Amino acid sequence: MPDDSAIQAALARAVTIAARGPEHGPNPRVGCVIIAEDGTTLGEGWHRGAGTPHAEVAAIADARSAGRDVRGATAVVTLEPCAHTGRTGPCVDALTQAGVAQVRYAVPDPGDASSGGAAVLNERGIPAVHVPDAGASALTRRWVTAMRLRRPYVIAKWASTLDGRMAAADGTSVWITGDEARDHAHHVRAGVDAIAVGTGTVRADDPRLSARPGGEESAHQPLRAVIGQSETTGAQVWRDANAIALRTRDPHEALAILHAREVRTLVVEGGPTVLSALVREGLVDEVNAYIAPALLGAGPSAIEDLGIGTMSSALRGQDVNFQPLGADILVTAHFSRGL
Amino acid sequence: MPDDSAIQAALARAVTIAARGPEHGPNPRVGCVIIAEDGTTLGEGWHRGAGTPHAEVAAIADARSAGRDVRGATAVVTLEPCAHTGRTGPCVDALTQAGVAQVRYAVPDPGDASSGGAAVLNERGIPAVHVPDAGASALTRRWVTAMRLRRPYVIAKWASTLDGRMAAADGTSVWITGDEARDHAHHVRAGVDAIAVGTGTVRADDPRLSARPGGEESAHQPLRAVIGQSETTGAQVWRDANAIALRTRDPHEALAILHAREVRTLVVEGGPTVLSALVREGLVDEVNAYIAPALLGAGPSAIEDLGIGTMSSALRGQDVNFQPLGADILVTAHFSRGL
Repeated sequence: MPDDSAIQAALARAVTIAARGPEHGPNPRVGCVIIAEDGTTLGEGWHRGAGTPHAEVAAIADARSAGRDVRGATAVVTLEPCAHTGRTGPCVDALTQAGVAQVRYAVPDPGDASSGGAAVLNERGIPAVHVPDAGASALTRRWVTAMRLRRPYVIAKWASTLDGRMAAADGTSVWITGDEARDHAHHVRAGVDAIAVGTGTVRADDPRLSARPGGEESAHQPLRAVIGQSETTGAQVWRDANAIALRTRDPHEALAILHAREVRTLVVEGGPTVLSALVREGLVDEVNAYIAPALLGAGPSAIEDLGIGTMSSALRGQDVNFQPLGADILVTAHFSRGL
Repeated sequence: MPDDSAIQAALARAVTIAARGPEHGPNPRVGCVIIAEDGTTLGEGWHRGAGTPHAEVAAIADARSAGRDVRGATAVVTLEPCAHTGRTGPCVDALTQAGVAQVRYAVPDPGDASSGGAAVLNERGIPAVHVPDAGASALTRRWVTAMRLRRPYVIAKWASTLDGRMAAADGTSVWITGDEARDHAHHVRAGVDAIAVGTGTVRADDPRLSARPGGEESAHQPLRAVIGQSETTGAQVWRDANAIALRTRDPHEALAILHAREVRTLVVEGGPTVLSALVREGLVDEVNAYIAPALLGAGPSAIEDLGIGTMSSALRGQDVNFQPLGADILVTAHFSRGL
């Protein structure tokens, strides 16, 4: 049996290769490294997106193609192997059939259908042990949140001036931040399943809501979701079928519809009405606030009334990160209340 | 005559020792290094604050006390030597009497009374040449601004949430940011000549407006200035004579009074009425915005109506800096329009 340091090294490698998979999509990013008793790598694999083999199956195939025998070996996986048949067969069966002797996994699967894989393996006499790992947790944080809460992981995104205005008095909001900040926002869009805005934003700005990191349309384009009941016929968001109207003012209902569409990660880009409704209901997991070193003196804030009257009741973010982007700065904070 | 690299090295040293002087006070921070033909340092000195010897005089004294002859030497100074008698005699006379052969200085003196020193030296056959230096310019930036514009260098300081609120709906504003950010603000206070707030802030918060970096009252306490015409009798700011009432609603007039009191650097800490009046009149040189990763959804912004209607007219900061302070971030930006 490989020692702890061999397991840790394999896990670190599994996290690294897992990150090659797509951020978006219904499935999490998963990596698997199969090691021999002395720690030698026999095979490795990662999940490349829905419909392709899971990481465990990819790692077994990798070992076989190199002529290496995985019988009696240890499979180290970033996520608990699945026990269900989805677009592909259960990983616990693939591991059993391959003759793997034991399994180490970093993150328990919170999925309704897919979880329970470790228990199945243990019953079959293949010890499957949970080995917590910060890297693996970070990698699957959004997906785990989405599966546990049965709604998309919600990122509230806005850009504002130093004095907190997301638009000027006349409603103009374009070019509030510079090139680097806008490009960063396009990279975020390219990594999520859907972008949502309210009907008010569609009527005011008629945005394309496409992902154009580096100025180029990315291969993956997130679903465009429009929340609200006002009329938006003819707007650019409806230019093709990759769009959905969520005709409700209830943010819970809007997120439930997206969850049913297998949307795991969602960026909400405004306006204040939609952003505030989500924050008020405790449905925002992460804020991405791009702040420009500019002053306007008038114009709406990104967040409207939350029913908070006094400073001690302010909502406080955790795991705060700062990223300078040209003259602007991105502040990222987590606001999860449901976990 | 020392070569260019010897002059540059002496200038770098002069900037370093100049920074030992106090940030506050009517005089700028100045350093002087006197070097021989081969670049050897003969003496060095810096200005320790109003009423003490200027840097040139201190450097000459330093050389003498070590028994070194400065006749025929080169004096390298961060600021043009003064030509007037203030609390001490003119530096051009001290340099002439010491027999210095030539002078190099990094920043021209913009002072009304003190300037013209280089011309006096040149007339006396002591070449005084301007050698620009970024470090010296940064060191004297605030003082040069104050002397040129005949008003204090104005730092507008506020703390706000991610959604741009400097107070909650009920007016509470304490503890918006964490310990590190508050301590940083106390260090800033300890380095300026005066702190100003409006009468509204005094009536609402009754602040002490003292400088307590590291939790201790600093030896230098800035003048407390209260701008406006409302009654504030009995407030904490009036606890001793180190306070002034500026009974005007005209920010130009308020700054002129402070200039006459030799206030070179001023931090304005609110409220929105005073901050906005200064920004509107183009009287803010620098913004220090402490941003907490919190959301309130209601409450005043730091800056009110500036007469700006559309995004393209937003005031844009330059030389933007970001400094993480615990979970908060300090955004510093320069908004000088008068220079």
